[in-house]
Amino acid sequence: MSGINIKKLALELNLSAATVSRALRDSYEISTETKQKVWAMAKKLNYEPNPSASNLRSQKSKTIAVIIPEVANNFFSQAINGIEEIARTRDYHVLIYQTHENSETEIAFIQRLLSGRVDGILISISKETDDNQLFKEIIKDIPVIFFDRVFKDIDAVKITTDDYESTYNATLHLIDCGCKKIAYLMGLSNLETGKKRIDGYTAALNDNDIAYKNELIMADCTDDDENYQQIKKLLITEKPDGIISSIEELALPCYYACKDLNLNIPADVKIISFSNLKTAPLLNPSLTTITQPAFEMGKEAATILFKILDKKYFESNETLILKSTLIKRGSTRCE
Amino acid sequence: MSGINIKKLALELNLSAATVSRALRDSYEISTETKQKVWAMAKKLNYEPNPSASNLRSQKSKTIAVIIPEVANNFFSQAINGIEEIARTRDYHVLIYQTHENSETEIAFIQRLLSGRVDGILISISKETDDNQLFKEIIKDIPVIFFDRVFKDIDAVKITTDDYESTYNATLHLIDCGCKKIAYLMGLSNLETGKKRIDGYTAALNDNDIAYKNELIMADCTDDDENYQQIKKLLITEKPDGIISSIEELALPCYYACKDLNLNIPADVKIISFSNLKTAPLLNPSLTTITQPAFEMGKEAATILFKILDKKYFESNETLILKSTLIKRGSTRCE
Repeated sequence: MSGINIKKLALELNLSAATVSRALRDSYEISTETKQKVWAMAKKLNYEPNPSASNLRSQKSKTIAVIIPEVANNFFSQAINGIEEIARTRDYHVLIYQTHENSETEIAFIQRLLSGRVDGILISISKETDDNQLFKEIIKDIPVIFFDRVFKDIDAVKITTDDYESTYNATLHLIDCGCKKIAYLMGLSNLETGKKRIDGYTAALNDNDIAYKNELIMADCTDDDENYQQIKKLLITEKPDGIISSIEELALPCYYACKDLNLNIPADVKIISFSNLKTAPLLNPSLTTITQPAFEMGKEAATILFKILDKKYFESNETLILKSTLIKRGSTRCE
Repeated sequence: MSGINIKKLALELNLSAATVSRALRDSYEISTETKQKVWAMAKKLNYEPNPSASNLRSQKSKTIAVIIPEVANNFFSQAINGIEEIARTRDYHVLIYQTHENSETEIAFIQRLLSGRVDGILISISKETDDNQLFKEIIKDIPVIFFDRVFKDIDAVKITTDDYESTYNATLHLIDCGCKKIAYLMGLSNLETGKKRIDGYTAALNDNDIAYKNELIMADCTDDDENYQQIKKLLITEKPDGIISSIEELALPCYYACKDLNLNIPADVKIISFSNLKTAPLLNPSLTTITQPAFEMGKEAATILFKILDKKYFESNETLILKSTLIKRGSTRCE
C-alpha cells in the first residue's frame, strides 16, 4: 500500500530513479519497452504518485468538481450520477460540493478550486447568487459548464431544460382540467431559470384570457416551515383551484397544507410540481410532475466538459436545451 | 482574482519574496507586525496559495473526504449535512465521493486520497466490501472514522445505530398487530450492520415462539427491477402478513408489488422499513419507518474526526451507538 516511491520502484527494476521517473511521465527519452516494464511494476506494487507533486508537474488533476446547492434534491443527485457515468469512462474522479444555496460558500469553494485542484467545474448556481462578475473572471482560468441554473449574460456553455415551455404546458393542463384560479409558487426568482418558468405560466394564462393576479403568486422562503405557513395562507385567502410549484421543495408543503385544511387533492385543488421525486407515483394522491431529464443533463454537461478538456472544438457560449416531461398523475385528475 | 502570486505580493509590500513566503507560513523568523501586513495584503488581493505547493509544505489540506455508497439515499444525504455542519465551523471543505456500492471504486478512491489530498476520511463502506485487510492498512496512514456500515474487527472509531434493537422492536410491533408470518427483506448481508439487523428479527420471533422460516427471508439484489420481482414472488408464494425491510431501497418496491397484486396495506400485509424518506408520511398509506438519526450521526462522526486531528485524546477503537426511532404510521395500522 504505502511507502512505494520512485526509489523503491527503481530498486525493484534495477533502473535509475531518474529513468523510472521519466518513464512514469511517458517521456520520449525512454524506450517503449522500458516504459512498459516500469508501468507494469508500478501497477503490481500499487505505486501511487504523490498527487501534490504530480499536479505541479503535469497540471492535470484528473479530477472534476460538481458544485450544486443540495445533494438531497433528487434532481441534483440524478444529475451527479449522469456526470459520474461519463467521468468513469475517462478515469476521472468527481468531487461533489454542496453550497446550501449560500453565495459566499459557493465563492469560497471556487476560489480554492482555481489553483489546479481540479481540471474543470460543472456548476448549478445557488439561488442567492445574482452577480455573475466573479464567474466572468473564473471562466478565463478554468473550463466551467453551467447546468440547470445558469446566468443569462455569460460567455460559457450552458445546459438548461425548456423551462418556459414546461410551465406553459403545465398551466395549459390545469386550464384543460377546468382550473380558473391557478396559483404559482415561485422559486429561483433571481435566476434566468426561475424567470423563464414564471414567464411560461404568465403566457399560458394570457393565451387563454385568464387574468394574471399578483395575489396568486407566492415567492419561496429559505425556511421550510415558513413555506408551509405561506402556502396555507394562500390556500385560505385566495382559494386557488390549481397550484404550480416551480421547485420540488414546495410540493410536499402543499400536500401538508391541504391535509391540514381538509382540502381534497385533486377535487378542491389540483397540484403540479417540478420534481424528480422517486415517490411521486406513490404519494396520496400521486403527484403530477414536470420531470427534468436530470441524469441525461449530467451526462451532456460532462461530455461537453471533456470535449473542452480534450481541446476539441466547441462553441464556447453554446446553450443546450433539453426537454422536460409533464407526467400526469392523481393530483391533477379531472373528475 | 487570478495571477496574484508571492512575487506580486512582495512587490506590493516592498518586501522580499522569501519574507512574504515565510510570513504566509507564519514562520517564527518574521515579526508579528510584518506578518499582519502580509496577511492583510494577501486578503485584500485575494491571494490563494497554490494548494499543491502548499500541501507539500504544511501537510494540511483543510479538507476531509466523505465516502458513501449513494447521495440519493436519504440517510446519506442527511449524514453529509451533519458532517458539513461541523466542518464549516472548522473552515474545512468536505469532498463527497460516491462508490455506488462498488468495492473497486471504493479502493481506487481511497488509494488516491492517501497521499495528502485530505486530512481525514469518514466512510460508510459499500455493501460489496467484505475484506477489511486494506482498511487495516489505511488506518495506519490517515484518520478514518467508520459510520453506519462498519467492520466488526478493525481497530478504529465506529459509529452505528442500535441495529439489533431496532429490528427487534419493529418485529415486536408487527407481532403486537397480530402478524404471524413476518417476511424479512435482507440487505447489507456482508456487513456487521446487516447481520445485527437480522439477528434482532430472529430474536424477536424466538422470544414470541414464532418459528424462523428460511422461505420468509429474501436477500436483496443489485437490480431494482429484480428486487421488485422477488418481492412479488415472495408475496404470492409465502403470503406473509407482515414485512420488515432492512434497507430503504426495498420499501418502494414493496408498495408497487402490493399495488400490482391488489393487496391492501395494512389490511393484507403490514410494512415497516428502515428509511429516512421525507415523503414517508405522505405515501399511500403512510409508511412506518425505523428512522436513523442520520444528521446527528454525521455530526458525531465529524466531531470525533476533528478531535483526532487536533490530537486530543480519543480511544482509537471506540464504538458509539446512537438510537433509531420506530415511527408508527398507516402501513402498520392495527384495524
